[in-house]
Amino acid sequence: MCAFVLKGTFAHTPQIDGFQFLEDHFLVSDGEKIVGLFKNLPEQYKNLRLYDYTGKIIIPGMSDLHIHAPQYAFRGIGQNIEGSNWDSWFERYAFPDESRYMDLDYAGKAYERLANDLLKTPTTRLSMFATIHRPATELLMDILDKKGFGGYVGKVNMDRNSIEGLLESTEETLSETEKWINECSGKYGLIKPIITPRYIPSCTDEAMAGLSKLIEKYDLPVQSHLSEGLDEIEWVKSLKPEITCYGQGYDMYNMLGGKTKCIQAHCIFPTDEEFELISRRENLWVAHCADANLHSCGTSAPILKYIRAGVKVGLGSDSAGGSFINLFRVMWEAIIASKVHWAYTVRKNEPFVKKDFLSLANAFYLATKGGGSFFGNVGSFEAGYQCDAVVLDDSRLIDIIPRTTYERLERMISLSDDREIAAKFINGKKVL
Amino acid sequence: MCAFVLKGTFAHTPQIDGFQFLEDHFLVSDGEKIVGLFKNLPEQYKNLRLYDYTGKIIIPGMSDLHIHAPQYAFRGIGQNIEGSNWDSWFERYAFPDESRYMDLDYAGKAYERLANDLLKTPTTRLSMFATIHRPATELLMDILDKKGFGGYVGKVNMDRNSIEGLLESTEETLSETEKWINECSGKYGLIKPIITPRYIPSCTDEAMAGLSKLIEKYDLPVQSHLSEGLDEIEWVKSLKPEITCYGQGYDMYNMLGGKTKCIQAHCIFPTDEEFELISRRENLWVAHCADANLHSCGTSAPILKYIRAGVKVGLGSDSAGGSFINLFRVMWEAIIASKVHWAYTVRKNEPFVKKDFLSLANAFYLATKGGGSFFGNVGSFEAGYQCDAVVLDDSRLIDIIPRTTYERLERMISLSDDREIAAKFINGKKVL
Repeated sequence: MCAFVLKGTFAHTPQIDGFQFLEDHFLVSDGEKIVGLFKNLPEQYKNLRLYDYTGKIIIPGMSDLHIHAPQYAFRGIGQNIEGSNWDSWFERYAFPDESRYMDLDYAGKAYERLANDLLKTPTTRLSMFATIHRPATELLMDILDKKGFGGYVGKVNMDRNSIEGLLESTEETLSETEKWINECSGKYGLIKPIITPRYIPSCTDEAMAGLSKLIEKYDLPVQSHLSEGLDEIEWVKSLKPEITCYGQGYDMYNMLGGKTKCIQAHCIFPTDEEFELISRRENLWVAHCADANLHSCGTSAPILKYIRAGVKVGLGSDSAGGSFINLFRVMWEAIIASKVHWAYTVRKNEPFVKKDFLSLANAFYLATKGGGSFFGNVGSFEAGYQCDAVVLDDSRLIDIIPRTTYERLERMISLSDDREIAAKFINGKKVL
Repeated sequence: MCAFVLKGTFAHTPQIDGFQFLEDHFLVSDGEKIVGLFKNLPEQYKNLRLYDYTGKIIIPGMSDLHIHAPQYAFRGIGQNIEGSNWDSWFERYAFPDESRYMDLDYAGKAYERLANDLLKTPTTRLSMFATIHRPATELLMDILDKKGFGGYVGKVNMDRNSIEGLLESTEETLSETEKWINECSGKYGLIKPIITPRYIPSCTDEAMAGLSKLIEKYDLPVQSHLSEGLDEIEWVKSLKPEITCYGQGYDMYNMLGGKTKCIQAHCIFPTDEEFELISRRENLWVAHCADANLHSCGTSAPILKYIRAGVKVGLGSDSAGGSFINLFRVMWEAIIASKVHWAYTVRKNEPFVKKDFLSLANAFYLATKGGGSFFGNVGSFEAGYQCDAVVLDDSRLIDIIPRTTYERLERMISLSDDREIAAKFINGKKVL
């Protein structure tokens, strides 16, 4: 561990309701965690290596709670199939593309590109779906580890309702998963395994029960998809007529944040019963994938309702259901989604109705500290937090007249891309 | 006029319901219009200058029907004022920023930047709001003309409900407008004046009546804003209690496409009466500003309903109510907006409801031929159309495996930025 100092203007959201801006400050890191932020650098840190980003804005690393690594290869494609539905998207894009990861050469090229592109986004931590293929999943973990990322990668389980080449037997899906856990646990720095049943339609009860045992045996977290589509919910009902809500189908296997840490992506259409269940599960994080959800079904999770009920929420790019791996864009769409929700369910067509939607600070919190909490003390510049920091250079976007730090940050969230990512630190290591 | 040939893969939408792709074709232009597209270049054109874009996709130039030139300076800022409403956005951003255009030095810097940035988007034609300032409006026309753009620029009229420095007397707004018309008419190549009352709340009846006379006297088109916000509609009702719908307040002054060509931006909340009026006005174009509308009020115009009623529709970036001047992004948000509209007003919470929203081809048509028709034969590669063409280089975004032309174009619409704009022709002139 090598201690260092960052100088610049720091922006973060220690609480969900507002930004804290620290203009021209010094951040001291012990090489892993944040020691503190100081207006004047204390004497004892003056010999440390100084990274001087004066004039630039530095934000905490962001956490992407839901991303399908193999689908990045077809990002930006397939969201507008005419007369489309989820089946045709799966059949035409997701499944054929995921099948390619049997080929390690293809997997290496695709995952290397994803990891390189991710470096030039604000993301420092992630929870990823790989494919059913153990070797390609380990290759992905290797690649992410070498780039310095932190988080979880899951070998996907599918023992029903898939296509030839992307389907395992129940026995195989469980034995391959256990083999993978044994091969990768403790092998990497910050990259760890996570149990990943794709979703209830693609896993038999036997597979779910077996995975539930592995969660307990190896003390692993779990991730899956919940209530993403109305048609899907009907399908789950027909597959498991004994459950009274979709979430219960996970909860019975300790896959809804009961005893074990869990991410459920989407959670768009909770029934009252499911909402109540979600709000009682203290180890559950909802991955809010606003960009993907608006495109797939024109709506997204009732996110303010979750937040106000005390549910933990982070953001997910859901590449390539979402087109973008840059969480600034997902924040942007999350704000839109909350405005849409307000407009159609609260305001309706009445004038003078009080606005109530996600603020920029709310969305920033979800992208940083909200999702970051799944990985520990991540996503804030408070002392003791892991030192994940992203340096933004807005010189391409600046104005003729001066703007406030808030406005500069707002503009970068709206308009910036990979060109604005000037430097990045994950867990106290400079990775870009 | 200097005839030339473009070689590449052409993509356009001669009809709203689908793309036509012409792989590896030759487009022949007489230096202004399109002569034709050919799979094999006819003998008589073989001595013409050839621009060889083999492997690249070439699309028609796009038309931005609604853009506030002075607001570009604060693009990406101010859309998330906490507890925001239109008043605070006007007071904090739009009005103070527009006031600066009294200063020609500032105006020159800001408009030069806008024009340069617009060059690196698919836009070739536009209908712009300037400010109330005659000299800065002419400067903007100068700058756009020099870059080669086509379209209309309007000196804005405001003789009530504005701020100090951005308010004219009724007499002044009319005399300055007439002086401006005389100074700029016929002065430029493709850039022309358009009458531009900001909207009913900022123009007295006397101003509207005077502008209406100028429309007739100089045979000029007109642009304004209609039914953008529910609160605004109530305000208009209180200002003009004699009208039965907002649109009627324009129609009585020939500002709704009765006799004279007109663009009305937004048209989000038509009453049945207003919808019926809009659908009968054959010289009216609706500028659909989906990006701006989703951000300002979480909804947007019922665009499929307009299209199916035969209303002419194009897209508007509405910079800086919208954050983006690239119409690819506006297309993207227009698709989202139509999915949202379907989800909340048709599907509601029922499964298995047939999808019905704007396809990629529909949105492309609005951005090209739909909006382009305001400027004449613009926005298509049909013979006789003005030769507006944009060459896209997707080498930064390509995939490991080959993709179809449709997929490559879809990805560029989702993910591209200024880096993908490789060359641009407006009215047969190479401008980039």
